[in-house]
Amino acid sequence: MRQVLVIGSGKSTSYLLKYLMDNAEMEQLFITVADISLKHAETLIANHRRATTQVLDVFNATDRAKAISQADIVISMLPAQLHIEVAKDCIRFGKHMVTASYISPEMQALDDEAKSKGLIFMNEIGVDPGIDHMSAMQIIDRIRNKGGKMILFESFTGGLIAPESDNNLWNYKFTWNPRNVVIAGQGGVAKFLQEGTYKYIPYHRLFRRTEFLDIDGFGRFEAYANRDSLKYQTVYGLENVKTLYRGTMRRVGFSRAWNIFVALGMTDDNYTIEDSEHMSYRDFVNAFLPYSPSDSVELKLRHQLKIDQDDVVWDKLLELDIFNPNKRVELKNATPAQILQKILQDKWTLSLNDKDMIVMYHKFGYELNGKNHQIDANMVVLGENQTYTAMAKTVGLPVAMATLAILNGKIKSTGVQRPINKEVYQPILAELQNHGIVFKEKEVPYFGYNPLHQ
Amino acid sequence: MRQVLVIGSGKSTSYLLKYLMDNAEMEQLFITVADISLKHAETLIANHRRATTQVLDVFNATDRAKAISQADIVISMLPAQLHIEVAKDCIRFGKHMVTASYISPEMQALDDEAKSKGLIFMNEIGVDPGIDHMSAMQIIDRIRNKGGKMILFESFTGGLIAPESDNNLWNYKFTWNPRNVVIAGQGGVAKFLQEGTYKYIPYHRLFRRTEFLDIDGFGRFEAYANRDSLKYQTVYGLENVKTLYRGTMRRVGFSRAWNIFVALGMTDDNYTIEDSEHMSYRDFVNAFLPYSPSDSVELKLRHQLKIDQDDVVWDKLLELDIFNPNKRVELKNATPAQILQKILQDKWTLSLNDKDMIVMYHKFGYELNGKNHQIDANMVVLGENQTYTAMAKTVGLPVAMATLAILNGKIKSTGVQRPINKEVYQPILAELQNHGIVFKEKEVPYFGYNPLHQ
Repeated sequence: MRQVLVIGSGKSTSYLLKYLMDNAEMEQLFITVADISLKHAETLIANHRRATTQVLDVFNATDRAKAISQADIVISMLPAQLHIEVAKDCIRFGKHMVTASYISPEMQALDDEAKSKGLIFMNEIGVDPGIDHMSAMQIIDRIRNKGGKMILFESFTGGLIAPESDNNLWNYKFTWNPRNVVIAGQGGVAKFLQEGTYKYIPYHRLFRRTEFLDIDGFGRFEAYANRDSLKYQTVYGLENVKTLYRGTMRRVGFSRAWNIFVALGMTDDNYTIEDSEHMSYRDFVNAFLPYSPSDSVELKLRHQLKIDQDDVVWDKLLELDIFNPNKRVELKNATPAQILQKILQDKWTLSLNDKDMIVMYHKFGYELNGKNHQIDANMVVLGENQTYTAMAKTVGLPVAMATLAILNGKIKSTGVQRPINKEVYQPILAELQNHGIVFKEKEVPYFGYNPLHQ
Repeated sequence: MRQVLVIGSGKSTSYLLKYLMDNAEMEQLFITVADISLKHAETLIANHRRATTQVLDVFNATDRAKAISQADIVISMLPAQLHIEVAKDCIRFGKHMVTASYISPEMQALDDEAKSKGLIFMNEIGVDPGIDHMSAMQIIDRIRNKGGKMILFESFTGGLIAPESDNNLWNYKFTWNPRNVVIAGQGGVAKFLQEGTYKYIPYHRLFRRTEFLDIDGFGRFEAYANRDSLKYQTVYGLENVKTLYRGTMRRVGFSRAWNIFVALGMTDDNYTIEDSEHMSYRDFVNAFLPYSPSDSVELKLRHQLKIDQDDVVWDKLLELDIFNPNKRVELKNATPAQILQKILQDKWTLSLNDKDMIVMYHKFGYELNGKNHQIDANMVVLGENQTYTAMAKTVGLPVAMATLAILNGKIKSTGVQRPINKEVYQPILAELQNHGIVFKEKEVPYFGYNPLHQ
């Protein structure tokens, strides 16, 4: 019997645990789900005979060490900043480890020790990062194997609402951490490469510089630039590409409306608003507009941002009830971003039967025998319900599959890893297809980065 | 003979030294100007028999202590962050001190020690801060003495080009530190009070929320909000005013054009541009615009920011030669702000005969006997030449006058001070009038903060 310790039992663990339990008999697994609160974990394992729960406070070093010392492999589904102590215990007790998070500098620093102990620390093996790495590297390796030279890579992911549940003007609901949505794009300039030149977009222009993406059967999406496009140059070996761009997908029109909040300053998370607790939603909006003894908050906003009254972005604002003088913020010493999040959560929280959707879109431009080519590949995954979400599926299944592959000796490279090698991505992508996680590829003419041809 | 030690001999010391030398005989002063380079100091004192120069590296603790120990009073004209070591030596050797800079927390922390030793550390006695404090408090005290209750205070200052030298489309040249102009307004939200409500302007909207100010004989100006309006509540005792606003003055139209740089991201000082050294001015502009295989940088910029070709802001950009593909940035690892500064310095540097101008504008709203009143007061000072500038005059003369007043026992309050008490501002404002630094006051109808009535 192989002991699998899963630390953390949050939203993204449903499919992870289901996969491990479904394979427990055949693979001789016993799964222990450790968390500070067991409510969600107990529902998910539902008295499965090959699984149990265990109360664990990860900040308690003794208890954490004891749990880890008894496992054969450890999956950390904790928030990213909490992985490191788990990782150090895994080094200490000689255990493999799997996470779906970006490799932090602290995690990277354990690489030598992990290697010297023959341990595999597989990270970035959820959806983004995770499936994006695997699906991109599969096609990049294929292009290279036939002698092609990569000249363009663009990659986009979005966590959205499924079409059947898409019933507001923003075509958006919070299917994941709302705070990350509100502060998305802050903290630095967006930097990327377009046709050989570095391009920079300041935060306050980010949502006005989108590009369109069409997915058969699902219509049109838009994407705004991520901050971190260039770090994929070294990870994917794309040092010589002319265009490198990563972005976040939304339904068309979201960004133009969201830009109203950015323009007014409502997404700022760096200072607190005076007496936020007692202000109304209307007061909040008015705090970003000039005083007037007579003009309405509505007219002042329209005038400041030059919004026509028949512009659909105006209806989007009205839908949020953001001008309501009777709804109170009720948050003490809140930042604008915190207040905006609350206003949005009133309207963008999932209803009981709402389903989510994960979309991913890659573009690969390459040169072969003196000609330019392009492959576009996309993936759409729909959630089943609010436990078995598309997010939980695309994050959890790769984590679970990698765990089993490590236990079965199919992944051999030791140290701090991400799933960019064929031995890792090939079998996992193949198995993901059986679970409906499929990339559709098509050859398209290569236009380079040229918005006019899209 | 009283020994006056002036540390630092930069741009703003010309009138300061002239005043001290002009009064040296009558007041029994001997002035020592200490700096790491004596070139400017020697020109300014021109072998005056009551003045001398001395090489001093302020980072050399021994030399600094020796110089300070021999003085009766120390004037620090160093950059603000360098005052504190001088101040500590002044405590140690029991010397009074004068600066034109804002009181830092470190300086404020010396208050008790200075008081216990009977020392006066007079700060914020230049123009802004300085003349603004004195001229505002004089009128505020007068209003209060007749029983008025302050309800509005707005205050604006600008360092500009004199009308006779105003010959570019921006109506602006660098009369002071160019870097401060380029990064003005960054680092936090602008926060102020308008008619009882707190208002917040994010940096990227700052230059679109200006207000107009008219000065007889000098025409119309505009002002954008400073970050720090609210800290004057406690300093001036204005806790109960409904409107409190401080701003920076420019000629009308400057801010709308400047906003182009802000919108594109060219004023950002937080990251460096790739290969900035070899890029042309045109490349720099293009780095903030989308790639296009055919469209010009000019058209992309106009399109992105929706600028009509016959809009004067377009001519302002052309005047800066910012689209030139042959002029090179020639700065290694430069931030956008550093590059923009270089481009502007090509065009906005003073010509040999150019003169500067300092403008200040205050509005005081108050209630008296159940009625609302308003007093507007403004000051315009013109420079004589590029040594005897309006900036040097308005910064240096109050410093010099305060120094003499301390030596002569006319300022009595010890500790870390700013010039907000009558014993300080009354005689200095009176004497400044003899030097042409005069406030013109007029009663105007009280409209409160209402842009429509301005």
